[in-house]
Amino acid sequence: STIALLPGDGIGPEVCVQARALIDAVATRFNHDFAIEEALIGGAAIDAHADPLPPATVAVCERADAVLLGAVGGPKWSDPNARVRPEQGLLKLRATLGVFANLRPVKPHPVAAKYSPLKPKLLNGVDLLFVRELTGGVYFGEKRREGDVAFDACRYSVQEVERVTRKAALLARGRSGKITHVDKANVLETSRLWRSTVTRVLRDEFPDIALEHVLVDAMAMHLLTKPAEFDVILTENLFGDILTDEASVLGGSMGLLPSASLGDGKAGLYEPIHGSAPDIAGRGIANPYATLLSVALLLRHSLGLDREAVAVEAAVSDALDARVLTRDLTRRNAVSTAEAGAWVVR
Amino acid sequence: STIALLPGDGIGPEVCVQARALIDAVATRFNHDFAIEEALIGGAAIDAHADPLPPATVAVCERADAVLLGAVGGPKWSDPNARVRPEQGLLKLRATLGVFANLRPVKPHPVAAKYSPLKPKLLNGVDLLFVRELTGGVYFGEKRREGDVAFDACRYSVQEVERVTRKAALLARGRSGKITHVDKANVLETSRLWRSTVTRVLRDEFPDIALEHVLVDAMAMHLLTKPAEFDVILTENLFGDILTDEASVLGGSMGLLPSASLGDGKAGLYEPIHGSAPDIAGRGIANPYATLLSVALLLRHSLGLDREAVAVEAAVSDALDARVLTRDLTRRNAVSTAEAGAWVVR
Ligand SMILES: CC(C)[C@H](C(=O)O)[C@@H](O)C(=O)O
Ligand SMILES: CC(C)[C@H](C(=O)O)[C@@H](O)C(=O)O
Repeated sequence: STIALLPGDGIGPEVCVQARALIDAVATRFNHDFAIEEALIGGAAIDAHADPLPPATVAVCERADAVLLGAVGGPKWSDPNARVRPEQGLLKLRATLGVFANLRPVKPHPVAAKYSPLKPKLLNGVDLLFVRELTGGVYFGEKRREGDVAFDACRYSVQEVERVTRKAALLARGRSGKITHVDKANVLETSRLWRSTVTRVLRDEFPDIALEHVLVDAMAMHLLTKPAEFDVILTENLFGDILTDEASVLGGSMGLLPSASLGDGKAGLYEPIHGSAPDIAGRGIANPYATLLSVALLLRHSLGLDREAVAVEAAVSDALDARVLTRDLTRRNAVSTAEAGAWVVR
Repeated sequence: STIALLPGDGIGPEVCVQARALIDAVATRFNHDFAIEEALIGGAAIDAHADPLPPATVAVCERADAVLLGAVGGPKWSDPNARVRPEQGLLKLRATLGVFANLRPVKPHPVAAKYSPLKPKLLNGVDLLFVRELTGGVYFGEKRREGDVAFDACRYSVQEVERVTRKAALLARGRSGKITHVDKANVLETSRLWRSTVTRVLRDEFPDIALEHVLVDAMAMHLLTKPAEFDVILTENLFGDILTDEASVLGGSMGLLPSASLGDGKAGLYEPIHGSAPDIAGRGIANPYATLLSVALLLRHSLGLDREAVAVEAAVSDALDARVLTRDLTRRNAVSTAEAGAWVVR
């Protein structure tokens, strides 16, 4: 199989070095042949080609079975009024690959959970799977200025909601069989379309799945007051962006959360949910686990290698148990990015 | 002065009974003459007049010096596809009164903070003032369906951003002199207009105020990992809705958080940030403190009665110190809505 590797900016390259070593180790250990093709994205691609997603990168991704991405962005390219910005590369890649379902699991590991701002008792039994719609909504609607006025259009079609609902429902079947759909149906027309479509798809095609609707403002609170009561959480693009960053605190550190973005056919896209963390970039102290766990998701969802995925997840969990922790998780005896990566590889 | 009282739905009427008693007590104690005029809004107004904001209610509010609102909404009127919905009354009232700046202070009281899901250490020194833009953005943009597609337009003008920024800056001057502006400028055009406008207004008119910009997803996390580092938080309508509900957990209970919505001239609008809580409505167990604290904000911001406001705030704080707590805050020896209200009045 072929894996496209897009290190990007900030700590992206550092954590991707560890991911590459892990992929090589999995190949050796389980007797696979993985070809890794690296390409530029984000600020690195702007510097080299004045384009955050150069055609050569698209070509590499389109012929790959899966794409692994580090992170994009940084102060060097952060003027929001610049014509080209690193994030455009990421958004265009998501659209190009058609990865409409972004899976973000949040399951606190006991060692890391100690670093959560939440009281430990609340974290017992937390095991969430966010399914965030990733290629629609206000991210991709028309944006414009008219004199002194700015506009962003949020747009959703029934078909866009149907396909991500089906993905969420299939995933819910393998878990507790329950979906919490989050919207703002008391204000937004798109939310009303979401609400009626999700309700219909589940009633007609997945009558075995239990469904509840929760308003996004209430959910921002419930995620903190009763996180163990939820399982699969289905929502639109912008709400998913906000709620998953919020929920990252349940796991103790952003540095632990992987994500998988899936479509129909083509390559899946795998990325840690943390950003490029320019403040710590280049110092060899970033937490590589979110990226290594993204490799596990890649093995499982794009290459169909579940045994290999489980082995990687177990290795990261063992590393946490053994307190092989980077600086985001401990003040004493912190290991470097390379040490943490090497431990998991071994 | 004249105060319009709109009890609304669910627990709204119950907590407003206590607010009325408090207003009467303040009048007696400080020798004022307050006229209270009650009117219908939300579901109650739909039932009576098939209109969530009847013209008679608008008339009462427009001739008042301030408007105090309980809450709107409930399962009886909750079909999101219904033609008239309770929330429409609230949104129309906000627009009619032109209350573009929604102030939501969050300052945990030690007794209540014990009930926060956050570790106590993190709450030390937390004293936030959210300034949420309330009459623009996606709440008031065009909404439509075109066949199988739904649209919501988010719209902001430079002038809308300027006026709420000035309000926030004046408030920041009376506090730590620092504003955190929250947006999603890496994706939204309206956020880019916000970012440049806020930056310019502060630079040109309030050079004494320190300003930082934070992305909304990062802020959803930082509010939990380092809440004490923020002071005035300025943001657009939808982000403010989500972040203030999230931040309510810092105070231990939604039942403690008041809000003030101010415009230029006309009456200010005061409401607890909690909803109509239909699950506990009519049982006399709702927490009235958020509404009583909203009365304090009303006395201060619309009637210019700061001494009276301070007295009300001190009474609520004393009630918490004395552990006069409703069911949301304690399992043992909980008092009723009426007992809590009476304690504060005394
Ligand atoms: C970088 C940014 C455009 C992106 C998003 O908002 O989707 C990021 O926050 C994420 O969640 O992957
Ligand atoms: C009831 C609803 C329309 C309202 C809003 O979203 O503004 C509420 O959530 C609030 O925060 O006051």
